[in-house]
Order: sequence, then C-alpha cells, then structure tokens
Amino acid sequence: MTSKNKTNPVEGAEQIIAVAHRLADAARTETLKLFRSPALRPDNKATTGFDPVTEADRASERAMRAILAAERPEDGIVGEEYGVQQGRSGLTWVLDPIDGTRAFMAGAPSWGVLIGLNDAQGPIYGIVDQPHLHERFEGGLGHARLISREGTHRLKARQGVSLAEATLMTTYPEVGSSAEHAAFSRVSAQVRLVRYGLDCYAYALLAAGHVDLVIEAGLQPYDVVAPIAVVQAAGGVVTDWQGRPAHGGGTILAAGSHELHAEALALLMGD
Amino acid sequence: MTSKNKTNPVEGAEQIIAVAHRLADAARTETLKLFRSPALRPDNKATTGFDPVTEADRASERAMRAILAAERPEDGIVGEEYGVQQGRSGLTWVLDPIDGTRAFMAGAPSWGVLIGLNDAQGPIYGIVDQPHLHERFEGGLGHARLISREGTHRLKARQGVSLAEATLMTTYPEVGSSAEHAAFSRVSAQVRLVRYGLDCYAYALLAAGHVDLVIEAGLQPYDVVAPIAVVQAAGGVVTDWQGRPAHGGGTILAAGSHELHAEALALLMGD
Repeated sequence: MTSKNKTNPVEGAEQIIAVAHRLADAARTETLKLFRSPALRPDNKATTGFDPVTEADRASERAMRAILAAERPEDGIVGEEYGVQQGRSGLTWVLDPIDGTRAFMAGAPSWGVLIGLNDAQGPIYGIVDQPHLHERFEGGLGHARLISREGTHRLKARQGVSLAEATLMTTYPEVGSSAEHAAFSRVSAQVRLVRYGLDCYAYALLAAGHVDLVIEAGLQPYDVVAPIAVVQAAGGVVTDWQGRPAHGGGTILAAGSHELHAEALALLMGD
Repeated sequence: MTSKNKTNPVEGAEQIIAVAHRLADAARTETLKLFRSPALRPDNKATTGFDPVTEADRASERAMRAILAAERPEDGIVGEEYGVQQGRSGLTWVLDPIDGTRAFMAGAPSWGVLIGLNDAQGPIYGIVDQPHLHERFEGGLGHARLISREGTHRLKARQGVSLAEATLMTTYPEVGSSAEHAAFSRVSAQVRLVRYGLDCYAYALLAAGHVDLVIEAGLQPYDVVAPIAVVQAAGGVVTDWQGRPAHGGGTILAAGSHELHAEALALLMGD
C-alpha cells in the first residue's frame, strides 16, 4: 500500500467497497446454507451459561478471511470466531460472521453479518447484511444506502422526534449489569415504544429512519464497528453511555438525531 | 350454504382455502403500501398508555371483509378493528389485519396478518402471513405448509426436545400481570434460550420446527385463532395455562410436542 493510501484511505474506497461486498456475498452464501436447516447443531462456547456458536458462524468468517487474504493482505482483521490478525496498512476489518447467533438458531431473521472497517481513529465504513431478507445496509466512504430486492434506497435517520415520541430498541431486556439496567430504564420509561430482540437489525432500522434509539451494553468491538459506520453515514449519532467513542465495545447509545442523543445521554448519565 | 356443509365444513374446504388465500393476498397488498412508509401515522386507541392502530390495519381488514361479504356472506366475522358480524353458517372468520402493529411501526418484519376460521368447537384452519418476507404459514383442512419465494415446504413442529434444550419465545418481557410473570419465569428459568419481540411470527417459527415453546398472556381471540390452527396442524400442542382450549384468548402455551407441553404446563400451574 502506498503512503498516500495510508494517510487517506478514502482514495482506495472503490476497491475497499468492492471487496466488502464480496465478503458480504460470501457470508450470505455460507450462512444461508445452515439457516433453518436441521443440520444446524449449535455448540456452547461458554463455560457457564449458553453462548452458542455454529458451523455457520465459522464457515462465514473463514470465507471472509480467505477473500481478505487474497485481496487485502496488508489490512488487519478482528473477527469474532478467529481472533486478531495484525495488519500494516492502518486499516482493520472488524467482522462478526453472525451477529445474533441465538436469533439464527431460532429461525428469526434479525441476525446479520457485520463487516466494519476501522482506521486509526475508528469506523470509516460498514455493512450490516441480513441474508434471509436480502437486505444490505451500507454506510461510509460516500455511501448510505439499503440494497434489497426492491432496489437501492438512501438511508436517512429520522430527525425531529422527541424522547416522548421515540421508538427504542435493545436486544436483551436485562441490558447488562443491574446498574446498567437502571440507567437504561431511565430512558425506556420516557419513550413511546420499546422493542426487544432484534440484534444488529435494530441499528439498520435506525439508519433507515424507522427506529429512533438503540441502547445496549456488554458489547464487543465486532458487534458495533459496522453498525456505527452505517448509523453515522445515515446522519445518526453513536457514542457510549458517557458520550465517548463507542467502537471499542461496552455500552452503546445510537440515536437518529443530535437532540435525541443528548436527551437520552443525560438520562443514562443520571443527570 | 347446504346443511351438509353446516355439519361438515371440511366438505367446502377447497373453496374456503381459496378464499383465505385471497384474503391474505389482499391484506398483503394493503399492509405493504404503508410498511416502512413515511406516510404511516399511527393513532393511539388507548385512553391511557399507547395502543397503536394505523390506516394499514384498517385498510387491510376492510379489504378482507369486502372479499368475505362477496364470497362467504353466511359466515360470521370477528376482526380486531371492525368488531363482530354474526353469521349463519356455523363458521366464523377471526381476523387480525396486523398482529404486531408496534413491530410494523418500527419497520421490523415480525408482524403478520392473521386469518383464522372457527367452527362451533374452535379453530379448524388458519393462515399466518408475513408480507415483507413473502412467507405464508398455513395449517388445517388437510394442510400444514409454508409457502414462500423458495417454494412450498411442509410445516412440522420439532419433537424430542427437553425443557433444558428448548427455545422459548414471548413478545413482551413483562408477560401480563405480576402473577403471570412469575409463572412464566418458572418456565423461562429452565430453558436454554429465551427470545422476545416476535409477535405472531413466534408461532410460525414453532410450527416450522425452529422454536419449541411460545408462552404469552393478555391475548385476544383474534391474536390466537390462526396461530393455534397452524401450530396444531404442524403437530404442536396449544392450550391456555390451565390446559384448557385457548382460542378464546387470555393466556397461551404452545409447544412443539406433547411431552414439552406437559413439562411447561406443570411449571405454569405451580406444580
């Protein structure tokens, strides 16, 4: 990679985007082979409790890593199933081959394939792909779009919605620790509608202007890098619960507008 | 309608099924016009709290009622938005034009159109249709099938799954009253996986063999008649939390197998 590309990765944007779509296509093929298949046999990777992983997760990540090894050998990789591979380009692909393995196991179409790209500062590009729905949400490097069977549509987060009118999503009703749950409840008590269980698809719906807030805790970098890029490209705002960059994982507050983000952040911080 | 049909409605099954699919097609058209549309403006039909209804709900039910008025004028109708119309045939259509209006508002594809048919004893036929996914789950009058873009597949509830291995779904984490929540928690504490927020689609996933239990409270007849028919046709078992017929609404326990139903029922009853 040239030094020009190091300081301005956007100059290689066209090739980066083409590779990202090839990753998403490969992951779509691998995951759909086992989605709703009787051959799906979840393994438990937790020593206590249940943290499922399936051959679909592993095959999906392997397929993406093989493409990156051929096409982007200088870039780093962080993947949920196969860990960290250091790079030299200043760019790092952050992959979750199936975000929402529990939904995947249950046949629910809220799981997704997450393909994020970080530079030294954080997320610059991401794809949230829902293979069963054939919906691909893409943001960054000049794009903010949903590509589906119905064509390509611009993603635009909804503006002008007050907290009292807002729709809030989170995956797990317990939302992390009990202190985190208490903070979450200060927000959820004020909104019009709370919905659960949608995993990464909640961020996609926020970017598409159907949902106003997503608030979660206990996240990993591979859970958030791609959603952050998509939401930000659509005009939304994403931080952790202290208003800091969220791409390292932990807590996350995503909002459609700056005003709504500020209202929710104040409640999360106990102001 | 002849007296023969009165005593044996299955003799008219072919025409009933054709009409039911026409209802589902009409509802699909009406609901998709407003799904994810900026023109969608939910009204609140509750005097306290938020119980949304949209023009999509109303247009969907009107379209179905117009078809029934022309094709099945002797049958009764119970619909969420336009109430009860008495019939003379002994058959009653039980319609929910959008089950999961909150999901519909949020752009999430877990809402559905519910088309059930009761005789004097209870559900004999039902369709759970998910328009955005183009998935139609149908059960009763000799059928148990999923019709989708991928073709037609037989619906078969999963057998041989113990409570400790089971996937449980419910829409609202609070699950009705506090006593009902306590009963629900006796079951949810024992299963491998609990997922929230899928409305009627949870029953469809149970009938398709991906989910093992659906447990809910506070339901209306139009929420349950079609799901009961589909789950039973797929070999599942549905009762209320006392083991009685569930088609009148209230509490519901749907299980993939008789054994799992018995295990969950004992816990719900506090045995």
